[in-house]
Amino acid sequence: MSKIVQKYGGSSVGDVEKIKAVAEKIIKEKKTGNDVVVIVSAMGKTTDSLFSLARQINSMPPRRELDLLLSTGEIVSVALLCMAIENSGYKAIGLPGFLAGIYTDTVHTRAKIKKIDPKKILYELANDKIVIIAGFQGISAEESITTLGRGGSDLTAIAIAGAINADRCEIYTDVEGVFTTDPRIVPEAKIISEISYEEMLEMASAGAKVMQARAVEIAQKYKIPFMVKSTFSERGGTMVKEMTLEEGAVVTSVTLDEHQAKITFFNVPDKPGIAAQIFGELGKENINVDIIVQNVSKQDHTDLSFTVASSDMEHALEISKRQGEELKAANVICDDNICKITIIGLGMANHPGVAARMFKVLAEEGINIEMISTSEIRVSCVIRKNQGKKALKSIHNEFFK
Amino acid sequence: MSKIVQKYGGSSVGDVEKIKAVAEKIIKEKKTGNDVVVIVSAMGKTTDSLFSLARQINSMPPRRELDLLLSTGEIVSVALLCMAIENSGYKAIGLPGFLAGIYTDTVHTRAKIKKIDPKKILYELANDKIVIIAGFQGISAEESITTLGRGGSDLTAIAIAGAINADRCEIYTDVEGVFTTDPRIVPEAKIISEISYEEMLEMASAGAKVMQARAVEIAQKYKIPFMVKSTFSERGGTMVKEMTLEEGAVVTSVTLDEHQAKITFFNVPDKPGIAAQIFGELGKENINVDIIVQNVSKQDHTDLSFTVASSDMEHALEISKRQGEELKAANVICDDNICKITIIGLGMANHPGVAARMFKVLAEEGINIEMISTSEIRVSCVIRKNQGKKALKSIHNEFFK
Repeated sequence: MSKIVQKYGGSSVGDVEKIKAVAEKIIKEKKTGNDVVVIVSAMGKTTDSLFSLARQINSMPPRRELDLLLSTGEIVSVALLCMAIENSGYKAIGLPGFLAGIYTDTVHTRAKIKKIDPKKILYELANDKIVIIAGFQGISAEESITTLGRGGSDLTAIAIAGAINADRCEIYTDVEGVFTTDPRIVPEAKIISEISYEEMLEMASAGAKVMQARAVEIAQKYKIPFMVKSTFSERGGTMVKEMTLEEGAVVTSVTLDEHQAKITFFNVPDKPGIAAQIFGELGKENINVDIIVQNVSKQDHTDLSFTVASSDMEHALEISKRQGEELKAANVICDDNICKITIIGLGMANHPGVAARMFKVLAEEGINIEMISTSEIRVSCVIRKNQGKKALKSIHNEFFK
Repeated sequence: MSKIVQKYGGSSVGDVEKIKAVAEKIIKEKKTGNDVVVIVSAMGKTTDSLFSLARQINSMPPRRELDLLLSTGEIVSVALLCMAIENSGYKAIGLPGFLAGIYTDTVHTRAKIKKIDPKKILYELANDKIVIIAGFQGISAEESITTLGRGGSDLTAIAIAGAINADRCEIYTDVEGVFTTDPRIVPEAKIISEISYEEMLEMASAGAKVMQARAVEIAQKYKIPFMVKSTFSERGGTMVKEMTLEEGAVVTSVTLDEHQAKITFFNVPDKPGIAAQIFGELGKENINVDIIVQNVSKQDHTDLSFTVASSDMEHALEISKRQGEELKAANVICDDNICKITIIGLGMANHPGVAARMFKVLAEEGINIEMISTSEIRVSCVIRKNQGKKALKSIHNEFFK
């Protein structure tokens, strides 16, 4: 007998019929004789509606009460899913996060899980019950309901899989797995059958809409393998697990991020402490800087460019202009007509020349590279936004033909 | 400084604008320097919608999960009300039932409060916070969320008022108080300024849509006075409290219950144990019997009639027919073309002749009385249903002219 953790996202439980279908899927697993623990998100757009209700009352809803409000969405799904399972004659028990033993810190709306006490879950499994748990939520030491931030249900599933030492952890979603690139742009995109935690993390930070980085980090830290697969199809499925560099593909995925903006400081004095000052100020305001490029110095002056999420551009520019004046930069400008294209592959570390293949494809397409950033298993290029999709297709074709 | 408990029902927090208005009302009380604890119900028809969602999934929703589902409705109101209060610059904290220390038994969908631990409430009041608590819910010793049944928020409010030794307990609703009779039928109905617990209980069992009997019983048991008043108007208000027979009015209210049915056993043997057998069987099936009338015996046989809620009639008739065969009754019939009219008054106990005045009014209107039942502070008559409203008007006119 194995212990199986399954997680169903909001689109998988979007209406009454889908909830019934998910219940049948869960029962199918239970019928094989396994213990089943299910983590479930709020139905469809529930979280968005609750948030909008809150905004009608208070344009800056207090975070503690926002968590209390949002936590109800998952509880509704839990209760309904239990009812659907019991309707088919199987025993189920629904647990809000706090009753499932999920203890978090006190940082409302993006709490971190501190501890999971699986006593109650294991007790109910021993009673032959299917255990249904509300994702995305827990309780703090101050006895307040907390939520884990968007995508937090994945985190709940992985943390619980670790806490009960599950044999399998399955993340069900509305796609058939993790793709080599965005299939809406490149129809030839393939499902990746196996991928390492590191690659998943690089994909998330490269802008691929896969899983919340924190969920993957926890899986990596505690070595919890998990499967991403479709609720509505038996095909596909991507196994995310620990892999050696030797096991890894040279290129696993190609990712395009069109929500990037670039800020450039022209002609700042090239002396120690300048970068620390600029990025220190941005960090204080919680602005994540992605790629940083500094030109070769001329006459003790240099140009400095960096990218931020385009939603942060205005705020980052305002801070940068203040910094630019203090540092006596010639000018500070911004540009959101850019995009970032990234190739990721664990095997890249052992295979020189992968970056060169990427640059060659871009050159052949006549695409100018404005910024480059690399890690051991990743190469990112910033190019003009209107060339992004063409670049994605050509690079995908180069590595996945 | 006084401790005030306020309870707002679902119609008082039916939409965003009403929630804002309630927040202002609460702040007004807080501004006087008092400590304020608020109990709130689910918004408008939320509980009904959640119940209907459950029924779409499972026609007999398991009670434990139904409680988990329904409990979310009040939590949403709590969170939104806190947000509205904080938007006006006051500090509030929202507590679901289980965090407010409300411990119940394990009878799902109609749990009884076993204990209230007011530690958290008192702690937050000491921190100058307005404490907003989800009505209608608690947690059982098995760590399951429970609900207290329809009208359970009133019970929460009264129990908390008792637990924190509140100076005032105010039940806000969409009417201006408790009326001498139903103002939709008798426009001359007046608001009762003071009423005893006993009279409120008699009114509830006489079919008046006032408060859940259990809430009043708890108030009576622990001598917790409370005020029923309107959320939307400063007028009116009914104080419910301990009163002596001397303080009571001869007639406080006149009530019409049109949801009654009568079952009659004809010609059953008049010997010991018959009534015990009939009503024992009905009790086992949870059918409440209201008025019982037994005729004078003729030739060791008698007729026996009793009333039940019309929703129980079919079920009660089925049981009664079985009993009738065993007891060799000549016949067992039912009739739901009846209604029950009741006068209630604490002072009635000290004033003979009140019942006679009621019978006289009915006689003058040509209305035949089919059954009579009395207590120290109540007289009920069963009459034809189509004469109910006329009887109500005439009797109200007799006592409240």
